[in-house]
Amino acid sequence: MTDETDPQTAIDAQGERRRADLDDRIREYSAGDDQKGIPFVGAGPGDPGLLTVTGTELLEDADLVVHAGSLVNSEVLEAYCDDAELVNSIGKDLEELIPLMRDAYEDGDSVVRLHSGDPAIYGAALEQMDALEHEDVPTYLVPGVTSAFAASASLRTQLTLNEVANHVAFTRPQGKTLSAEEDHISEFVGMGDVTTCIYLGTHAVGETMDRLLEDGHEPETPVAVVYHASWPDEDVIVGTIATIGDRLAEAGHRASAMVIVGEAVTGAGYERSFLYGDWATRGSQD
Amino acid sequence: MTDETDPQTAIDAQGERRRADLDDRIREYSAGDDQKGIPFVGAGPGDPGLLTVTGTELLEDADLVVHAGSLVNSEVLEAYCDDAELVNSIGKDLEELIPLMRDAYEDGDSVVRLHSGDPAIYGAALEQMDALEHEDVPTYLVPGVTSAFAASASLRTQLTLNEVANHVAFTRPQGKTLSAEEDHISEFVGMGDVTTCIYLGTHAVGETMDRLLEDGHEPETPVAVVYHASWPDEDVIVGTIATIGDRLAEAGHRASAMVIVGEAVTGAGYERSFLYGDWATRGSQD
Repeated sequence: MTDETDPQTAIDAQGERRRADLDDRIREYSAGDDQKGIPFVGAGPGDPGLLTVTGTELLEDADLVVHAGSLVNSEVLEAYCDDAELVNSIGKDLEELIPLMRDAYEDGDSVVRLHSGDPAIYGAALEQMDALEHEDVPTYLVPGVTSAFAASASLRTQLTLNEVANHVAFTRPQGKTLSAEEDHISEFVGMGDVTTCIYLGTHAVGETMDRLLEDGHEPETPVAVVYHASWPDEDVIVGTIATIGDRLAEAGHRASAMVIVGEAVTGAGYERSFLYGDWATRGSQD
Repeated sequence: MTDETDPQTAIDAQGERRRADLDDRIREYSAGDDQKGIPFVGAGPGDPGLLTVTGTELLEDADLVVHAGSLVNSEVLEAYCDDAELVNSIGKDLEELIPLMRDAYEDGDSVVRLHSGDPAIYGAALEQMDALEHEDVPTYLVPGVTSAFAASASLRTQLTLNEVANHVAFTRPQGKTLSAEEDHISEFVGMGDVTTCIYLGTHAVGETMDRLLEDGHEPETPVAVVYHASWPDEDVIVGTIATIGDRLAEAGHRASAMVIVGEAVTGAGYERSFLYGDWATRGSQD
C-alpha cells in the first residue's frame, strides 16, 4: 500500500473501473479455474470434509495462509496447512493485512486468504481484493459451502420445500452495521413461504424474536439455532419464535450460530413434486 | 415401496413424525459426519474441483450413483465415479427411483444420490429421503456449493456488500409451480439492498424483468446471467433490468443459468468495513 492510497480510496477506484468495464478475467476464467494471484477461498462451514477439492489443493500448496481465526475450524488448518505460515486476520485491519499479503505475493510466495463459509456471503473479501488489485496484486475467488447449508444438512431438511418454503433469505439483524430500516427479517418472515437464515445475529436472537412477535407474526413459527454447524461441538436448539430466545439464552451460545426461521426447520407439510422427472427439467420446459 | 404406500403418504407420515419428535440423529451427527444409509450429496455447481472432499470420497466408494442427468456436469461423474453404475434420474418419478435405490441398498451396495449444487436449495431431495426412510432405508445429507456462489465467484464479486447489498434472496419466478402471489421477486428487488438470485427461471427472464419495470423498479439496476457457472461452457451476460431480457434472448440460453439482480453484480459502491478485525468478530461483541 503506497502512502497516498488508503483502502477506501482503492475500493472506490476499483469500483469506478468495474462500473466502466467488465473485467476481462470474468470472460476468461470460470469459478474453480486455476488463476494467477491470491485466491480468496471459502473454508466451508467447519468440517474439513466440507472444503472443496480446489480449496484443499490451494491450502496444501500455500506458503502463507491468512485465515479468519476462530471463525475457521482449526481442524481445517490442521488437515491441509501443514507446510504454510499461518496468520490470524482477526484484530488486523486492512492497513495491516494488505501489505502483508502483497509483500508475500511479490516475494514469490503462494498466498491463500481463507474465509469461513463462502466468501460471497458476509465475507468482507472484496474490500481486500480491491485493495490488493489496486496494488497490482491479482486476486480471485474460490467458492465454498456456507454455514446455512451445513445447518440444513444437520437438521436433515431442505431450505426450500414445495409450497411451504418457496424462497430463502440470507440476512442479518439491525445493530451496529444495519439500521432498523435495513432490517428486513420481519418482511421475509411475513411473506410466509420464505426460509429466513440469520447470519451474525446470535447475540440478538431474543430481541429479533420480540420484534417478530410485536409485528404480529405467528408465535408458533418454527425456529432452529445451529451453533458451529458441522464442527465437533455442533449444538442444535429448536423452538419457535415465542420460545427460541429463552432456549438459546439457556444454552449460552453467543456467536457462530445460524438461526433459521420457517416451516423448513421441521421439514414437514410439504408437497412432493408433481412428477420428479418433470420437476427437475422444468427449467428447460415451461 | 410396498403396494400400500404411495410417496405422498410416506412424506406425510414422515412429516408427522418430524413434527412430534426431533430425529435422534440430528443430535447424534453433524453435517459432514460419516453416517449409515444413502447420502444425498451436493455435486456443487459443476467444476469437479468445487465438489467437497467428503462428496468425492462417497462417489469414489459408490457402487450405484443416481445423478441428476444434465444438471450435473459430466466431468464430475468422469472424475469420481469410475467404479460405479450410473443412473440418470431425469424422467424417472419417485415410484421408480425409490425401489431402485432401496433394493440396491438392501443388497449391500453403496448408493449415492447426487444432486446438483446444494441439495437444500431447490433440490427435491427430502421427498426421496422421506420415502426411503419410510421404507426403513436410512438417508442423510452432504451439503455442496450452490450455483449462486459459483456465479458470484465468476463475476468476481460478493453477494453481500456493505450498504449496497446487505441481504441475499434465493428465489424463483411464478410459473407452473408458483402462483403470482408466491412470486416475491419484485418485493426483494424493492427492498433496495437485497441481492436477488433467481434459480430455475432462465426461460422467464424477459417476463420477470417486464414485471419489475411495471412495478416501477429502477431500469438501470444491474443484472447478470451466468449460464453453467463453473462449467467449461460458462457464459456471462451482463445488463440491467431494462436490457438483460433481450441480451439473454440473443445468447439463447434456455436453462441452467443463474440470474442475479442488484448492485452486487457490479461490486461497486460499497463501504469498507469500519475495522476489518472488528467486523469479523462483531458477532461476539455487539
